[in-house]
Amino acid sequence: MTQKLRIAIIGAGRIGYVHAGSVNDTPNLELIYVVDPFEESARKVIADFGGKYSSDPVAVINSGEIDAVIIGSPTPTHIPLLREAINAGVHALCEKPLDLDIKKVDELRTLASSAKINITLGFNRRQDPQFKAVKRKVEEGQIGTIEQVIMTSRDPGPAPQSYIAVSGGIFRDMTIHDFDMARNFVPNIVEVSAFGANSFCDYIKEEGDFDNVSVVMKGANNEIITIINSRHSAYGYDQRIEVFGDKGMLQISNLGHSTVQLSNKDATASGEPYMDFFLERYAASYRNELKLFIEGIKQGKVLGSTYDDGRAALILADAAHESARTGKAVKVNLN
Amino acid sequence: MTQKLRIAIIGAGRIGYVHAGSVNDTPNLELIYVVDPFEESARKVIADFGGKYSSDPVAVINSGEIDAVIIGSPTPTHIPLLREAINAGVHALCEKPLDLDIKKVDELRTLASSAKINITLGFNRRQDPQFKAVKRKVEEGQIGTIEQVIMTSRDPGPAPQSYIAVSGGIFRDMTIHDFDMARNFVPNIVEVSAFGANSFCDYIKEEGDFDNVSVVMKGANNEIITIINSRHSAYGYDQRIEVFGDKGMLQISNLGHSTVQLSNKDATASGEPYMDFFLERYAASYRNELKLFIEGIKQGKVLGSTYDDGRAALILADAAHESARTGKAVKVNLN
Amino acid sequence: MTQKLRIAIIGAGRIGYVHAGSVNDTPNLELIYVVDPFEESARKVIADFGGKYSSDPVAVINSGEIDAVIIGSPTPTHIPLLREAINAGVHALCEKPLDLDIKKVDELRTLASSAKINITLGFNRRQDPQFKAVKRKVEEGQIGTIEQVIMTSRDPGPAPQSYIAVSGGIFRDMTIHDFDMARNFVPNIVEVSAFGANSFCDYIKEEGDFDNVSVVMKGANNEIITIINSRHSAYGYDQRIEVFGDKGMLQISNLGHSTVQLSNKDATASGEPYMDFFLERYAASYRNELKLFIEGIKQGKVLGSTYDDGRAALILADAAHESARTGKAVKVNLN
Amino acid sequence: MTQKLRIAIIGAGRIGYVHAGSVNDTPNLELIYVVDPFEESARKVIADFGGKYSSDPVAVINSGEIDAVIIGSPTPTHIPLLREAINAGVHALCEKPLDLDIKKVDELRTLASSAKINITLGFNRRQDPQFKAVKRKVEEGQIGTIEQVIMTSRDPGPAPQSYIAVSGGIFRDMTIHDFDMARNFVPNIVEVSAFGANSFCDYIKEEGDFDNVSVVMKGANNEIITIINSRHSAYGYDQRIEVFGDKGMLQISNLGHSTVQLSNKDATASGEPYMDFFLERYAASYRNELKLFIEGIKQGKVLGSTYDDGRAALILADAAHESARTGKAVKVNLN
Repeated sequence: MTQKLRIAIIGAGRIGYVHAGSVNDTPNLELIYVVDPFEESARKVIADFGGKYSSDPVAVINSGEIDAVIIGSPTPTHIPLLREAINAGVHALCEKPLDLDIKKVDELRTLASSAKINITLGFNRRQDPQFKAVKRKVEEGQIGTIEQVIMTSRDPGPAPQSYIAVSGGIFRDMTIHDFDMARNFVPNIVEVSAFGANSFCDYIKEEGDFDNVSVVMKGANNEIITIINSRHSAYGYDQRIEVFGDKGMLQISNLGHSTVQLSNKDATASGEPYMDFFLERYAASYRNELKLFIEGIKQGKVLGSTYDDGRAALILADAAHESARTGKAVKVNLN
Repeated sequence: MTQKLRIAIIGAGRIGYVHAGSVNDTPNLELIYVVDPFEESARKVIADFGGKYSSDPVAVINSGEIDAVIIGSPTPTHIPLLREAINAGVHALCEKPLDLDIKKVDELRTLASSAKINITLGFNRRQDPQFKAVKRKVEEGQIGTIEQVIMTSRDPGPAPQSYIAVSGGIFRDMTIHDFDMARNFVPNIVEVSAFGANSFCDYIKEEGDFDNVSVVMKGANNEIITIINSRHSAYGYDQRIEVFGDKGMLQISNLGHSTVQLSNKDATASGEPYMDFFLERYAASYRNELKLFIEGIKQGKVLGSTYDDGRAALILADAAHESARTGKAVKVNLN
Repeated sequence: MTQKLRIAIIGAGRIGYVHAGSVNDTPNLELIYVVDPFEESARKVIADFGGKYSSDPVAVINSGEIDAVIIGSPTPTHIPLLREAINAGVHALCEKPLDLDIKKVDELRTLASSAKINITLGFNRRQDPQFKAVKRKVEEGQIGTIEQVIMTSRDPGPAPQSYIAVSGGIFRDMTIHDFDMARNFVPNIVEVSAFGANSFCDYIKEEGDFDNVSVVMKGANNEIITIINSRHSAYGYDQRIEVFGDKGMLQISNLGHSTVQLSNKDATASGEPYMDFFLERYAASYRNELKLFIEGIKQGKVLGSTYDDGRAALILADAAHESARTGKAVKVNLN
Repeated sequence: MTQKLRIAIIGAGRIGYVHAGSVNDTPNLELIYVVDPFEESARKVIADFGGKYSSDPVAVINSGEIDAVIIGSPTPTHIPLLREAINAGVHALCEKPLDLDIKKVDELRTLASSAKINITLGFNRRQDPQFKAVKRKVEEGQIGTIEQVIMTSRDPGPAPQSYIAVSGGIFRDMTIHDFDMARNFVPNIVEVSAFGANSFCDYIKEEGDFDNVSVVMKGANNEIITIINSRHSAYGYDQRIEVFGDKGMLQISNLGHSTVQLSNKDATASGEPYMDFFLERYAASYRNELKLFIEGIKQGKVLGSTYDDGRAALILADAAHESARTGKAVKVNLN
């Protein structure tokens, strides 16, 4: 008889709800606790997927009732809760970013690297079937040696000002996914240059942040990585990558709800609207991420993104933040 | 507390295995029996999804231990087992075709239409998200009045001779899905003309069957439906539809494993191989089909394909069979 | 010094104008006469491309002033004018169809086949770069042996009733291009089955003609050819072909004015409107057709479509006409 | 009677040959001189399109026998020959770049701006039908206000070392087309940041130049322009643009020789190889460029790219050259 893995979810927001659903769908997992200061949010998750309510994540981590914790609470709680989990011997799947302050990330680094628990970072995009297909083809040698990577990520619309205010800026909040994806193809990045603009959103400007950015980075083997971001997109969530090697190029398309194309007097062969946002577009990624976390616990190693992946993405984001404000390329060391 | 619906699966082949997996994934269903003359096949299903073994479908249907039966055994058993299910008051999801002999289908028709149980036919393709998206857009009026429907279905490769020998011919075995899909858009079809050819497969010819066919049908409102089939396809499973109306046209594409496109010295923007065959391509359809069957039981009506849908498809197949052999268009009455 | 080839154009309508432009652009051709009963039409051509006016095609053909004639006058004049050209020793490029009456075509056949002049038929579509690319790839063996050919041709909108009345019916007027294209891939066609419908146009019905048709034909080597036509198309001129062989499939797309794709709140990746109609879509074809005619005169053989190609297309059109009215497949002999 | 415009072509290389062909195809132009130090090259042009040979461009410009000159000789000759043309009152279509040294460009600037002759710069890409379609749709407001422009240009393979050595570097030689295209959409660019890499070509590195580059620029209205270049491309000449505005996005595709797609056991829906290189891909652009030059002479104004367009592109190239070497964004003033 398989022992069930006992799970707590900390943070009952949108992503917490998704994770709870994945836990529910995965054999041999049991949702024990749903933790959130807002009881109503937690109760909604519990109603659909079970578990007990708590408002105290530290108590839950140390309760002895759980084997693993999924940390989806606000960013400033990530490092302290990871520390609790390490000390309590509880495996942790932690949402990105680790923190907005690289110093805090570095402080926990030694402890995290020697911890016996499994710490997996929530860079779900690496687990998306589309991006994984690109990765697999690169690994199969279909395009030879990587020379250029171009990523385009545009959100349907900007987050509210209250969110922007505490987001750490577009590079640490949004581009961080692209930084991690960059390292999925070019792990060792050595230099970062970034440009930011304020094109359309006054309150983003008020917060001292950008609404459109372009980042160029150099890899240790002379790869050039280019990232194009926007905080809005009239045609919906835009998520593309192009990997260019000496033997060819790989590209992915955005995903609509179906492949149906309509031709009429106004348009020819026009596609369906794109999947609206990350919870829909990356539904499979979230499931895969949890699956890898659980499988990693069994195998005793991290199969998804590591703590150091989370640290590397933040270093790149910090460098971009600095470069966009100074106009100078910033050298980085990800080791 | 919700009462669990108790299920038996008759036929433990590939489709039976898929249904068992869907039953396993669906809340409030319990797999009680897996029935197959070959115990080994049944045991494989049981090992993965539970249930008890039986070699006797009639006994299982009448055991009082089940509420619903999924009939995936060979075609000649469909009508007799449906009769048993009706008499036993057991709901039935029955694979296509109902039978190869329209007389047997007609004999059970009155009983089937007055039965209190839910009889749902396994025309899974109607439940495929791609085809459903086309249907929804037609219903939304995006292309106005339907004038033409063109369907292309090509299998990756021919079934073995032993299967062809008892298949009832390509129209009753393979095109029958397209006949049903035709009625999904044009329910009332009045005339059928068919052409068959023997292009590549000697043993299909030996069996008096065709390997490539083209069917043209007329709807009651002057719609023209064209079906193109092949028993093989070098580039994999080909499943497309084009619906043409007075205000526009809708088309779907084949599905690859991802949207990745590769450009290299030999090819530009070439897509992934298509999903290999129906169990993979229509995985979502099978799940949706079961879901509709269960939901229909709750609502007390058939939400998927009906017995009469199964009968209509067979009438069209018979007409095509005749037309391809006589060179004459055949008028049909689906009422 | 190269001798200029002296040309007369008979028929100063839209196609005549196009041909006059091509003559003008081609080195070593001289436009001597533009012939049309409506002097105004002819004068418009002459104003742009030169030449003298005449209302008498027979006189022009026999004037001794010309080496070649382009016959773009109404269909009933084609056979008589070809006869004049043969007798006068004047090369002839004749628009399709040869005639609406196969008997008249057959009457001239012997004379045409033994004539010393070059008689080229205006099936321009064979000279279209898109269709030629498909043909070339088939000849290179890229898809192995042809098993199926599927053609879709839809006009932007129906011709006026006056034209329909004398058109000879959709099969002889519109589908005839597809019949010729079918023979471009499967020269020897042995059986024809056709379906016609009256879906949207009252005056086409009044004239005893169809507005939507589907034709299925069998080739001598068991190829199945399917043609789908409509006299209207909400999204513009639709011209596609799919050739399916035992080793693969070739397809072409419709041509927009550019490859630009627009994504906005209403549509994703929608293409440009298609080129409006045949004079625009097949502009290159018309030029290539004239070029082949001229080159054929030099080489002393027909490089484009032959008189017998014109005859074969008409035989197929007649068979479709009959089949659509009788519901019976019609056997044909194209020899 | 229209007076013919008398033309001299200086430089009988590949582009000179293309221009000679366009001159030959354009009514009311007469090719008087073909000038090249290598008589053999010039004789080849003359054989096909006429004209007299000279090895002395200055003598030809001042001969009184010509009205306009097309300057396609090596870059260092451009400024001196433009000066001669201005002084001689001879219209000039000059290939890009104006010079590799912005000082020389600035020295002639006053004279050029006050010259009575038509000076048109050979930025042919602006005249390409694909890029023009994007421009027109932007002007029609289809995507609202431009926020981002992304250009991808990859050559099939690197030029020989001898060419690289005198090219002025990738930014002044290759990216200069993208700089001009950037200004086609965002005329006023204020800041340039560039990254260069040496990924694959040793002799390019030997010459102190890059083989892969990425450039990011800022427009005066907060537009971000991103350029991605490579000196090689396994799948052929890659020429794309994406323009992103607040109401939508426009994209173009690469051009194959046809739209034919092949599906077989190795690939699905794979396109034709792309047009090989600029003379083929931009054939229409070169014709349009000459047409605009001639039409501009008639209208007394520059309809194509101006001297100042040429100067602006060089300023941007210089800034990119500097930025890629210093790691600092460079502010520019294009006025």
